[in-house]
Amino acid sequence: MASYVHERSRFNLEDNEMPTQWYNVQADLAHPIAPYLGPDGSLADAEALAAIFPEPLIEQEISTQRWFDIPGPVLDVLHTYRPGPLNRARMFEKALGLPDNVHIYYKYEGINASGSHKANTAIPQAYYNKISGITKLATETGAGQWGSALSMAGAQLGIEVEVFMVGVSYDQKPYRRIFMESFGATVHRSPTTLTEAGRAMLEKDPDTLGSLGLAISEAVEVAAASPDTNYALGSVLNHVCLHQTIIGQEAIKQMELAGEEPDVVIACVGGGSNFAGLAFPYYLRRKEGKTGARLLAVEPKACPSLTHGSFEYDFGDEAKLTPQMMMYTLGHDFVPPGIHAGGLRYHGDSPLISQLVHENEIEATAVYQKDVFAAALEFARAEALLPAPESSHAIAAAIAEAKAAAEAGEPRTILFGLSGHGFLDLAAYENYINGKLQDYDFATGAVVG
Amino acid sequence: MASYVHERSRFNLEDNEMPTQWYNVQADLAHPIAPYLGPDGSLADAEALAAIFPEPLIEQEISTQRWFDIPGPVLDVLHTYRPGPLNRARMFEKALGLPDNVHIYYKYEGINASGSHKANTAIPQAYYNKISGITKLATETGAGQWGSALSMAGAQLGIEVEVFMVGVSYDQKPYRRIFMESFGATVHRSPTTLTEAGRAMLEKDPDTLGSLGLAISEAVEVAAASPDTNYALGSVLNHVCLHQTIIGQEAIKQMELAGEEPDVVIACVGGGSNFAGLAFPYYLRRKEGKTGARLLAVEPKACPSLTHGSFEYDFGDEAKLTPQMMMYTLGHDFVPPGIHAGGLRYHGDSPLISQLVHENEIEATAVYQKDVFAAALEFARAEALLPAPESSHAIAAAIAEAKAAAEAGEPRTILFGLSGHGFLDLAAYENYINGKLQDYDFATGAVVG
Repeated sequence: MASYVHERSRFNLEDNEMPTQWYNVQADLAHPIAPYLGPDGSLADAEALAAIFPEPLIEQEISTQRWFDIPGPVLDVLHTYRPGPLNRARMFEKALGLPDNVHIYYKYEGINASGSHKANTAIPQAYYNKISGITKLATETGAGQWGSALSMAGAQLGIEVEVFMVGVSYDQKPYRRIFMESFGATVHRSPTTLTEAGRAMLEKDPDTLGSLGLAISEAVEVAAASPDTNYALGSVLNHVCLHQTIIGQEAIKQMELAGEEPDVVIACVGGGSNFAGLAFPYYLRRKEGKTGARLLAVEPKACPSLTHGSFEYDFGDEAKLTPQMMMYTLGHDFVPPGIHAGGLRYHGDSPLISQLVHENEIEATAVYQKDVFAAALEFARAEALLPAPESSHAIAAAIAEAKAAAEAGEPRTILFGLSGHGFLDLAAYENYINGKLQDYDFATGAVVG
Repeated sequence: MASYVHERSRFNLEDNEMPTQWYNVQADLAHPIAPYLGPDGSLADAEALAAIFPEPLIEQEISTQRWFDIPGPVLDVLHTYRPGPLNRARMFEKALGLPDNVHIYYKYEGINASGSHKANTAIPQAYYNKISGITKLATETGAGQWGSALSMAGAQLGIEVEVFMVGVSYDQKPYRRIFMESFGATVHRSPTTLTEAGRAMLEKDPDTLGSLGLAISEAVEVAAASPDTNYALGSVLNHVCLHQTIIGQEAIKQMELAGEEPDVVIACVGGGSNFAGLAFPYYLRRKEGKTGARLLAVEPKACPSLTHGSFEYDFGDEAKLTPQMMMYTLGHDFVPPGIHAGGLRYHGDSPLISQLVHENEIEATAVYQKDVFAAALEFARAEALLPAPESSHAIAAAIAEAKAAAEAGEPRTILFGLSGHGFLDLAAYENYINGKLQDYDFATGAVVG
């Protein structure tokens, strides 16, 4: 058996190659995104956001300035786990039986303790709130990645974190709860008796398992009620997408080290910040004429907002507490089926990504979760890395791209984003292995398998 | 706030800097280790080992050859996660309030999917068995790291893996079991009715929770009964320590990149392979006159074989199925208290490490588990990395070294081995946070706290 260990597979950056600015795609849109609207349909301006967000984040939310400097203390904390790895998946290519001219690279975000890309925005959000005099952040978490990331960032930057965890997740994912508590956060099983929204729900249904919409309502209520407390959101919004662009900037440098330009850049999409983080810098690179890379967003067939939603104004949450945003949506009252990729169970999408999909700058595709888990295990066994179910949507799409290229006899360089690890998702793997997963196709209404 | 992001903290190696040989410390011992003895006290020669180990591993077990080439296919698989990271823990130094001349570095082995250094030996063991015509490996696992590593290696190299998992772990650590199954292994709750040893125990006590000793007996029985099946051990033995030396070889190169020579090299010790992996290459370096680094092994106060055991011949397992080895031991029938670092609950130690401790080449110290968890959380919060409880013994010792240097006003460069991540150990963290941990001091017999 031949060894290719002397062919380069790991494209590490030096410390001083970590990006020191964030890229704001709003500077380069063909048309600006539609403004946010208040619950009553009137324009939601910066002032309306100030009750729950600090001024620097609001500025990032609405600015069209192309680059934002990352503050030094944020760089220091990001630097505990960045620059991050970008590897060529040579053993995976071999397992798939790909020809020599089809290459697969992945950019991995699961190195930090919270285990996903969410840390990239949790850290600056904690920082900007802290320097704005805020002492506590309230937030919700469903699958748990976001609550974990904010808890970690709070511990690192010295700001209190209070997490409203969807009841059913609180019961089923004790490890996620313990993780947050280990980093000093207070974690509530939502709904609680601490908020009006929570009490109202408990009165209506004392046995409720909670929902993400309700957890958001509780966190927003807590934040709005105290001048020392703000709210933090882990995806969807422009400033969140902005913070994630450190991923794609690193990837561009690393692919240059690899001497290859990707033909397609793939990442999963829930609220969209992970995809934005990898893809937006490549969008700029395409604008600059340096790449022809296609940008491919991958979502679950059970919750396919980009491929089967409407591009229209809608609320970000079930309870209609957020502004209305112009985006691809399945309807704010759409309750996605219980697939095992909690981070992708969102009815809408980032307004920025939605706009770029609408303008055909970004492609989208939807995949079945059984194919996702099959892809995840094939990757895990070949590459010694256990991916999160969310991230594995990108793996499934990467396999499809690779096989299509192989069948067509074409060369193809594929880069996908691996947004997090799957160590706290092993119950989902067990369900897959034991044949207990069902698939839902939103488009046809069919239950598959 | 000043940022030190432009000061280097991550010392990554290029792909072609991954070591391609293993270092055999047996070449450089002042006195060879005492030979293994059979159950009856007669010399246990290579032939006696051949029933359960393949010839290349037996050769590595007994050889005094200084270097062994790592086979190409093993390099390929190791290369999916190696070279591994070595970082300076600048945020941790800051959190500890250390002076400028006390530096802490850590070498991290938790990148691979199985989450610990165990993969470094699981991969070559799977390989050598496969090329020797073996189709199945039987093994035991307690805490689960070793079973996870061998399951992963089996999937990567195409050899079946059958794991006898200690009953109580099987019940309490479903995620570990699912991990192994995800990589295609068969996992049994030990004792089983598949072996004589298991059936005998079940007859005696149908409700038994199992033990590591019994699980070893079952795995060895299965291996000995079939010519196609061998046994694999995750620590203690010389060939296991040999395979781990890739860690220390990388660390030496990386500390050279950092421009510093460690004053002390620290790692935790259970069976000893993790410590051996980091420390043996530094032992050679000291022999070569290139370093004066102290080598410090850290064990739990509840199971302190190196600091409170006797240096004598003893069996490796409770059931006396293994050869007798000359080592520091608390007695093969010693049952360690249920501390939350399963990987360190072993009555004995690697014969090689024992010999070097006996000859004062290696120092040893013992720590309380509460101090270990406090150290783990301080590190986790500062460095965005959740360590395994086993690995955190090294963190606790590193803190003690750093504080001692600071108090003495002396410069000190500390390198510790972080053998794995703690994502599947969160239940232990919860017990610590909730004040449910007790400490046991073997030396005094006291229950502390």
